[in-house]
Amino acid sequence: MSAPIFKEIDSHGITDVPGFRASGVHCDVRQKGNDQLDLGIIFSENPCSVAGTFTRNRIKAAPVLKCMELLDGDDPIHGVVANSGNANACTGVEGLANAAAMTEQAEEYLCGQGGKLLVCSTGRIGRQLPMKEVRKGVELAVGHLTDDSTGGKNFAKCILTSDTREKKITVVVESESGDSVTLAGVAKGAGMIRPDMATMLAFLATDLKISQVDLQTELGLAVKTSFNAITVDGDMSTNDTVLCFANGVGSVNWNSASGSFKEAFREALDLVCKRLAKLIVGDGEKITKVVTLKIETAESENSALEVAYAIAHSPLVKSSWAGSDPNWGRVVAAAGYSGVPVVENDLRMFYDDVLVFEKGLPVDVNLPKWQTVVDQKEFVIRLDLGMGEASAELIASDLTPEYINFNMKE
Amino acid sequence: MSAPIFKEIDSHGITDVPGFRASGVHCDVRQKGNDQLDLGIIFSENPCSVAGTFTRNRIKAAPVLKCMELLDGDDPIHGVVANSGNANACTGVEGLANAAAMTEQAEEYLCGQGGKLLVCSTGRIGRQLPMKEVRKGVELAVGHLTDDSTGGKNFAKCILTSDTREKKITVVVESESGDSVTLAGVAKGAGMIRPDMATMLAFLATDLKISQVDLQTELGLAVKTSFNAITVDGDMSTNDTVLCFANGVGSVNWNSASGSFKEAFREALDLVCKRLAKLIVGDGEKITKVVTLKIETAESENSALEVAYAIAHSPLVKSSWAGSDPNWGRVVAAAGYSGVPVVENDLRMFYDDVLVFEKGLPVDVNLPKWQTVVDQKEFVIRLDLGMGEASAELIASDLTPEYINFNMKE
Repeated sequence: MSAPIFKEIDSHGITDVPGFRASGVHCDVRQKGNDQLDLGIIFSENPCSVAGTFTRNRIKAAPVLKCMELLDGDDPIHGVVANSGNANACTGVEGLANAAAMTEQAEEYLCGQGGKLLVCSTGRIGRQLPMKEVRKGVELAVGHLTDDSTGGKNFAKCILTSDTREKKITVVVESESGDSVTLAGVAKGAGMIRPDMATMLAFLATDLKISQVDLQTELGLAVKTSFNAITVDGDMSTNDTVLCFANGVGSVNWNSASGSFKEAFREALDLVCKRLAKLIVGDGEKITKVVTLKIETAESENSALEVAYAIAHSPLVKSSWAGSDPNWGRVVAAAGYSGVPVVENDLRMFYDDVLVFEKGLPVDVNLPKWQTVVDQKEFVIRLDLGMGEASAELIASDLTPEYINFNMKE
Repeated sequence: MSAPIFKEIDSHGITDVPGFRASGVHCDVRQKGNDQLDLGIIFSENPCSVAGTFTRNRIKAAPVLKCMELLDGDDPIHGVVANSGNANACTGVEGLANAAAMTEQAEEYLCGQGGKLLVCSTGRIGRQLPMKEVRKGVELAVGHLTDDSTGGKNFAKCILTSDTREKKITVVVESESGDSVTLAGVAKGAGMIRPDMATMLAFLATDLKISQVDLQTELGLAVKTSFNAITVDGDMSTNDTVLCFANGVGSVNWNSASGSFKEAFREALDLVCKRLAKLIVGDGEKITKVVTLKIETAESENSALEVAYAIAHSPLVKSSWAGSDPNWGRVVAAAGYSGVPVVENDLRMFYDDVLVFEKGLPVDVNLPKWQTVVDQKEFVIRLDLGMGEASAELIASDLTPEYINFNMKE
């Protein structure tokens, strides 16, 4: 017997996990006459424990409301129907009916008595789903369900909107006794990303046997430091959803698993969530920099986050990142107006490991080194507040003229 | 006798007010070898009651600290020395000494025993003031002090940074008995504007006789709905300052003035502050739209403001304004994540007077009318929350590719 380990494998998406079939098809939800994949299904014959995390926006899209309702109930859940191109948000009673119709059609084909599918939508808001196209899509997607890699790859594609690439990762966790569990994740992101997962969808699947309650606890912990610790433009969408499906067909049962296996699975879940989150920021609309903000020696995690968000959402800071301008002044000023009572003379700021600001003054002698750091596509800004023991991390992006151009017209 | 009235007159700046001299000179604070006016003085032989409102950024520039200290003391104050091109912020002990040196030099020339001048700086942060240039500038500015219109105009110019034009307004308030009081204001704004007056300076002067305490009360009320109700990019600077000087040389005494005169003066002060605030937003860095957000039927003024700021700071909303895109969905989504528990079905939204969103749905039939409204350079978005009786107003701007380009390199 050896200690539990987890390793990343070449990912084809959800179908890497035993017992899951998937598909992604084109039905022209956008009604633009192109051939973009825009509807897909994840399906497990075995019913799943499902954990979910949803947008905290008060304006929740119909599919979000539908998912929340189903997760509160006792019906066996077998998977999810998802579409891109139309968010089914701000669509009133008709939108709720359409979300229900989408899943009912798929359930009729796929599920036994009482079996349910969840539903996710992303895309333009305020327009009713084109149900003729959607019905055609659901029928096609049911027909194309497969457990080979095509299914996983096509599903990963069909959820994309302004993303430029698929986002997927698969990890295998081996127990001491040689049993293994697979965990795969796919996501879509781009614009309107901020904590609480704005306009992002992520789907995770595993063959671990685990109760819904335990899965929800584990997912909640992993989401907090991954999908909820990223920001592109500070906007938070009506549709953000992270779902994790556990169909229990594998040979490991969470209840009887060793402590060290649980640790390994947690690390794997963290890795999957963090990797997908970072892929989302890195593929944010028209961004050129990924900046990790580490706020340290804060009074509390919350105050560290307040400082991080003030910096990450400052248009002046983000513009300077776009220009590779080592403008520490804007960063310090943003910390100053964050609402946290920082003390100028106690702040210490670093670009990667290079000291930038100390005792109320810039460390100008390091200017050439700062420039080298901020010229990189990815770098870290560390800000010590000198106020306590807490810290927080936030992954942010720059703001480019191209982002504005891209978003000037929907 | 007729009722007190106030009327706007053609403004030349501070020198419109009896007893005030002013100047604006070039001394190359920027050290760029150009001939931009960059240092000036406002001076009244008669000591003034002075009210001030300052940035709430925890990182306060040396001149802000100096002003706050002087306003807390009992020394007679005769005016202010101001410069652009260098903010004297994040400059430590040396910065504080430089701010003091600037005023002491001017005080020696101008003030009697114990007489003081305030000091304001705006521009780049983290660099020491070039004191050789500043000393030359103060000497020049003292020599150029004049009560004719050149003084007022040059002062209005010398405080500008990335502003494209001077901002000034003068109002005369006449009492029932035919006595009159003059109130003039000049300001500088542009980038980094948000409530709490980020990187904006405003100087008001009047010949009214009024105590410091009363003046502070009146200014505080006027600032709340003007300079503190505007936002360009959500950033808040280290240097924001509004100062109001009352030299009391006129014939009206606040203590003995009639209630209706006081009302007229308050309206005049409101007009001056609101006009300058709107000029600041309209001249924000590379902006093309000025949008007034009116959040109504909120539970409290604070919650109305929370909604307003969420909308005004959303890069997606601001991008759509830049594109004249009537994107109500981004506005509603921003209200949804503002932190205020809005209810989708209770929201009602208008572009100017045109209904946009009601009962959870867009009023698509009005789309052509929305387009006409958002095509304008200025328009109003009214959002009824249906939660209570309170309301708030915020003047915001769009976000353009040119803004980002402009701020990518300092």
